[in-house]
Order: sequence, then structure tokens, then C-alpha cells
Amino acid sequence: MLHPHLWPDTATVDDAGQLNIAGVSAAALARQYGTPLYVFDEATLRAQCRAFRQAFESRWPQSTIAYASKAYLSLALGRLLLEEGLELDVVSVGEMDMALAAGYPAERLHLHGNFKPDAELQAALEAGIGRVVVDSLDELERLEALAAVRKQRVAIWLRLCPEIEVETHAHIQTGHADSKFGLSGNRGEPLEAVERAIRSSWLDLVGLHLHLGSHLRDMEPLRRAVTWLGEFAAMLNVAYGVNIRELSPGGGLGVAYTPEDHPPDIEAYAEAITDALRAVNADFHLEPPRLIVEPGRAIVARAGVALYSIGPRKVTSGGKVILAVDGGMGDNIRPALYGAKYHAVLAERVTGLALERVRVVGRYCESGDTLIDAVKLPAAVTGNILAIPVSGAYHLPMASSYNLVPRPVVVFVKEGHVRLVRRRETLDDLLRLEREE
Amino acid sequence: MLHPHLWPDTATVDDAGQLNIAGVSAAALARQYGTPLYVFDEATLRAQCRAFRQAFESRWPQSTIAYASKAYLSLALGRLLLEEGLELDVVSVGEMDMALAAGYPAERLHLHGNFKPDAELQAALEAGIGRVVVDSLDELERLEALAAVRKQRVAIWLRLCPEIEVETHAHIQTGHADSKFGLSGNRGEPLEAVERAIRSSWLDLVGLHLHLGSHLRDMEPLRRAVTWLGEFAAMLNVAYGVNIRELSPGGGLGVAYTPEDHPPDIEAYAEAITDALRAVNADFHLEPPRLIVEPGRAIVARAGVALYSIGPRKVTSGGKVILAVDGGMGDNIRPALYGAKYHAVLAERVTGLALERVRVVGRYCESGDTLIDAVKLPAAVTGNILAIPVSGAYHLPMASSYNLVPRPVVVFVKEGHVRLVRRRETLDDLLRLEREE
Repeated sequence: MLHPHLWPDTATVDDAGQLNIAGVSAAALARQYGTPLYVFDEATLRAQCRAFRQAFESRWPQSTIAYASKAYLSLALGRLLLEEGLELDVVSVGEMDMALAAGYPAERLHLHGNFKPDAELQAALEAGIGRVVVDSLDELERLEALAAVRKQRVAIWLRLCPEIEVETHAHIQTGHADSKFGLSGNRGEPLEAVERAIRSSWLDLVGLHLHLGSHLRDMEPLRRAVTWLGEFAAMLNVAYGVNIRELSPGGGLGVAYTPEDHPPDIEAYAEAITDALRAVNADFHLEPPRLIVEPGRAIVARAGVALYSIGPRKVTSGGKVILAVDGGMGDNIRPALYGAKYHAVLAERVTGLALERVRVVGRYCESGDTLIDAVKLPAAVTGNILAIPVSGAYHLPMASSYNLVPRPVVVFVKEGHVRLVRRRETLDDLLRLEREE
Repeated sequence: MLHPHLWPDTATVDDAGQLNIAGVSAAALARQYGTPLYVFDEATLRAQCRAFRQAFESRWPQSTIAYASKAYLSLALGRLLLEEGLELDVVSVGEMDMALAAGYPAERLHLHGNFKPDAELQAALEAGIGRVVVDSLDELERLEALAAVRKQRVAIWLRLCPEIEVETHAHIQTGHADSKFGLSGNRGEPLEAVERAIRSSWLDLVGLHLHLGSHLRDMEPLRRAVTWLGEFAAMLNVAYGVNIRELSPGGGLGVAYTPEDHPPDIEAYAEAITDALRAVNADFHLEPPRLIVEPGRAIVARAGVALYSIGPRKVTSGGKVILAVDGGMGDNIRPALYGAKYHAVLAERVTGLALERVRVVGRYCESGDTLIDAVKLPAAVTGNILAIPVSGAYHLPMASSYNLVPRPVVVFVKEGHVRLVRRRETLDDLLRLEREE
């Protein structure tokens, strides 16, 4: 049957062995909308939002969950997150504009990023962005100059680099000493930034931020990071009389991608963060700050399922079975980029005996276009629908039109109903940016 | 100065140390069109097309150069390639449609790919595609059925898998025993395909194809592959009386990305292929087949230069200098995906003393977003323009809208003139596919 920790909350298998999501047949969706198709379960999205809010608010009442938009953002998702009371972490003016188009008030957005060009800082000021998370002295200077011209006071956080290493893929580890992110810890940059912010009439230093990396498994570095953040805030209070009202240890909670995978759950994550915060807060007798946590993957990953049509089946001379699907590295670059592992089932034969070990490859003209190195499935034939769970995060945002294959359709499902939230690309879309002068 | 093997033919440095391409200042282009900006030199594109034609036609008169569109295809490039007398290798109906929109006659297109869904085969038949490169028995069967319904005879090649390994990145090696591409060598699949093609009224078996992998450096496996291909054709002639009129050893010639890099040139590549073909042809007394060679990267890579604006400069606690630019893994995934190395210069200070060793990182919210691990540059400040050469292949086709950062503008330059061939994405473009039902 299904491994519940990999599938949407509403995923079920009927008597015929068919995968259903929110009461809708996955295979029927695939045939109706075409493949590759990404299906998001609204119930799971909402449940994850609520689980995060509950886990944090019950432990630390002044908690805010700010969804990390880079994991996946669309108009439909933005509206849902707004309804669930989340704030949004955006990393570009594009994500800010998408959030605004979804109805988000600008003051509930936090602008992150290691390089925010002037034009984007200007656009964020114009929109009335809630927080700018200042990543460098260069940016602090540029932001202040732009704010001064507009005579607009802007609330900022400083992104700090605690130089704590975590065990995750090197590509997505961000709080180590060599990181491109944040004010460098041992060089007096953070203090210089604080002093300049205090002196400025246009910068309101309200918070401190760090982020250790994506897809975290071990809670210990996170505890240390929260403690470090609290100590830093206390030090600023003593040294400059600054009252840091907001602390953000970023996001990064990992999720399971395969049956064997069991990362810490939201409760353990919330406990680690709030416990460390409570301790450091008590040690230094601080006024309790607002805690802002920024989950992305942990909210959307499991809510999304990728559906593909299976094409040619091959047996290599070494006897390995290779199944090709009609998507691949164009819609999911993670296996090629990070060596990410995935699970899969045949959407119409979930309960079939999975006797055959296969490699699932994509349709892109590149050998690295392998989606799954090894998964056991019932013997599949051309036209079968393959369902890959935990496809909600970092697939669609990193999708390309490589090989000029159109990017996937996206639907949301809820209580037996389906709505199209992103249509498939057409040649017109692909040609739309082309010009002949 | 510039390393000529990395830059467009027309790249020059003026007395002020400014990089010019086709007589146009790179920095001025960057400021006019905004960054990231991709600049293609038409003279280099045409020179590469002509160098390939000349190198092959002079050695084997019945040679055809078919450009591998997946390396990069646009309307402007398609028109240029057509003018230069090249055929096109396309790997999807999207690439086929782009080629048709650029004015290509369908009969000059070859449809490749390990999984061509029925709808794409159907579209290719309707368009009157020149060749379908059949990759599996499953595809042969589906293609024949579709052709039979249309009562349309279609010229095919068979893609064979010679099980020859080459030294290149595992992701882009395609002719080995475990490959997802082609009819498997040791299982009788190729012979079964030949027999079925011979029996069919709708399939015209005109050619054999293989492709060892992308970015080849060593010519020896290529010689063996051409020999293998010729022997296979001879065997088919003896066993079935089939006259194989076209042989294609694919493409894959490597290019230099860094100053130290010196892959074989086009002449050496042509010599290796034609020499092996001449030998095997003489051995078996075959009627000289048409030779079809499919370069992609070797035609476009060096013609393209990526221009970025430099943003925040950071010094890590370990003393390393990090320069952030306003592009990154969204427009060039190759460093993160393949560990690809690149070179760079400051467009306005090419002749400045490159005293500082820097890491060039992108603006995407991910630590893996490093474009260059180490390159020596004059001390750079915010606002300087960074030029990365050899950016013409596999950057734009694999570009994503990650972080909702718009994909780059593309211009072609020629004899002091500039034309916009792709405009920058806007929020409207990013929202265009979103739907609310």
C-alpha cells in the first residue's frame, strides 16, 4: 500500500488498486489534463500550515510562520497561504509581485536574498514591503540611500552567518563560514551594520535572521543557532541598547522522499527551536521576541504528486530494466542536481506486486536525466501512469523548457473537485519572448 | 588580454581595456539591455558552421552538418543556420515547431529522442519531418501504426547503442551499455528493428545513428564507433540486402571553457570520423553513404558571452573574496549540475592586473549557486560588468525562472549592429500560465 509519510493526507487506494487524491483518480487526472501533471492536495497544504502554526504558537505564542516562497509559489498557493494566516518570505521582486498578485498585503512579506539589485529594493520600498533582510554592508548602504530619497522608514533584519555546519547537501548548506549569505561573523561586519542602522533615520533594525541550510535532519545545530541568535540579540542590547524584537532561525526542516526516510517531525522541530529560545531568553532576561520560522519544503513537498506517462521500456544488455517517462530533468532537476532519491508507484496498480526493479528515466536528451535509479514496480507497459510523491517543492520553480518541452500543468484537488491552476506551455508561450528586429 | 580560444572571433579589447564584440562595447550592451544579458556573435556562429561544413565536405563530399538544436535554438539562430546550409537535429515537437517557425523546411529536420510520445510522432508526420531516429522497438511499432493510418511513408534511422564508453561527465555519456538511448546491442533488438522496418510498407530504413556522449575530448572511441557503424551497415547489406544510405555518428565535439582547456579542433574531429569511415567503407566495398554529423555545443558555445552586473562583494572569515552577480543557476545551471568550470573577465577592465582570486556566486537563494569557484580578476566593485565566455550552449535552453527571476535577454551582434532576439521575461509572462478556475 502507500507509505503515508510520503503521500498527501487524502491519498487512498481503492479496491481496484487505483491511487486517488482527495477522492479524485490520479490516472483519470493524468488522462484528462495530460502528462507531466503536478497534483497538489489542498487538504495537505492547509494541514501543514496549521501543524506549523499549532506547533510553534502552542510553545511560543509570539510565533509567526512565514512560508519560503522559493520552494514553490503560484497564485493559487499564495491565496491559500494567506487564508491560513502565514506570512511570506520572498527572494526577488518576482516572488514579491506574485505574492501581491495573489492578494498578499506587502507588509506581510519579507524580502530575502544575497543580491538585491537597486531596482528590486526600490520596488520593494514602493510596495511597502514588511521587512528587508539585509545581507551585506553594500546592501545596507544602497537600501538606506534609496529609503532616504523616498523619506521612507524601512524595517530591516540583519542576516547573520553563525558559521555552524550542518549535514546536508553542500549545495543547500548556507550557514557555514564560506557561505555567500549574510554578514560575515568574525569580521565585525554585523556590528558595523548594527551601528550604521542605529545611526540611520531610515532603517529600523527590528530583527536578526540566520538560516543553516535546506533539508535539515539534525536538530542540534539548529538549537545552537537559536542560542547563538539570542546571545547576539542580548549582546546588542547591552552594547547598544538596541531592542531586537524579532528573531528568525530561518527554515529548512527536511522531509521524507523515500520509504526508509524519517526526518524529525514538525513537533520535534518546534520543540528544538522554542526550547533553545526559551533558555537563551531566560539566561539574558530579554523581552520575549517574536519568533519567525520559514518553512518551505515541509509545507508543500508532500502535498504535491507528479504524474507521468510511461513510454518505452528497455532492457539493457546487463539485464537492467529502464522505463522512460514523458517528463524528467526539465520538470524535476533534483535527482540530477543533488542526487535526490524518489519513490514511485503505478497509479493504476498501487497494490500490484512490485516484483520488478527498474530505473526511471526522463525524455530529455541527456543520460543524466534519470528520475529514480532504482524502484520496485509491477511490470509496467507503455501508457501506464507513474506517480512520484513528494514532488511539491523545488520541482516546478526550477523547471526549464529544456529540449523545448513545455512545462507541466498544475491542478489543485479538494474534496473530489479539481481546479486547473497552471496550464501547459504552448509553442506560442515558448515563442512569446522571441523577437526579430 | 583575451584567450582567443574562449571568445567570439570578433572579440577585441580597446585601448581603455574595454571588451568589444563585433565592434560593440559589452559594458554598453549590458547597461542598455540590462543584465543578465546573453550576447551572440553572428560572425562566430557563421564561421563555426562553415568550418564544420568545410572540414567534412573537403574530406567526405557527401557530408551533411545537422545542428543539435538542444544546445540552443531560437528563431534568430534557426534562420542563421538555415542560411548556412545546415540541417537540424530536433528532440521534441517543440524544437521542431521552433525550427519550422524559423523557416526550416520539415524535410531538413531529424527527430531524435528516447521517448517520442504518439502525439509528437503524429505531429512530426503531419509536418513531413525528414527523418525519425527510432530509439526503441516500442517506438518503431507506434510510428509504423501512425504512418499506416496516414498512409505516409517515413524515412527512419535506427539509433544503435555501441556500448562504447567515453571519458566525459557521466550525465552526458550516452553510448555505454547502461544507456537509456538506442536499441540495445546484445539483445537482437537492432536486428528485430531492421526486420520489422524491411517488412513495413511505411518505414523506409535509410540510416543508422549513434551518439557517444556530449563534450568529447578523445577521438579514439569516436573512430571505433564509426567503424562499428560501418560494419553494422555492411552486415545488414549482407544479411538482408539493405542499402544503408546514411550514417550518423552523432555529435559531441568538446569545446574549451577555461584557458587551460584545449580539446581537439574541428579538423581533428573531421579527420577522425572521415578517416574511420573511409577505412570501413573500403573494407566492405560499400557504396559511399551520406555522413551526417550533429554538432551543437561546438557551433554555439564560443559565440555566446554572458554579461552580469556585479553586486555585493564579501570577504569570508577565512579571507576568501566572494562576488555576487545578478544571474546564476537560473540562467546557467552547468556549474551546479556538472561541476562545469568557467573563465571570466571584467568587461571594462580586461587589461587590468588580475590580482584578486575570487569566487563568483549567483543571486539565487541556494549555496550551490556558484558560477565560478576561483578566477583571478582586478578588484571589482558593485556595478562592474562581469563577462563569462563560452556561454552559448546549454545555458539558455536549461534556464529556469527559479526564485521567479526573469530569464535573460538575448542579443545578436554583427559588424557594430545589435538586434534584440529575445526580450526579458516580465511578471506578466510569469503569470501568463497561472489560472484561477
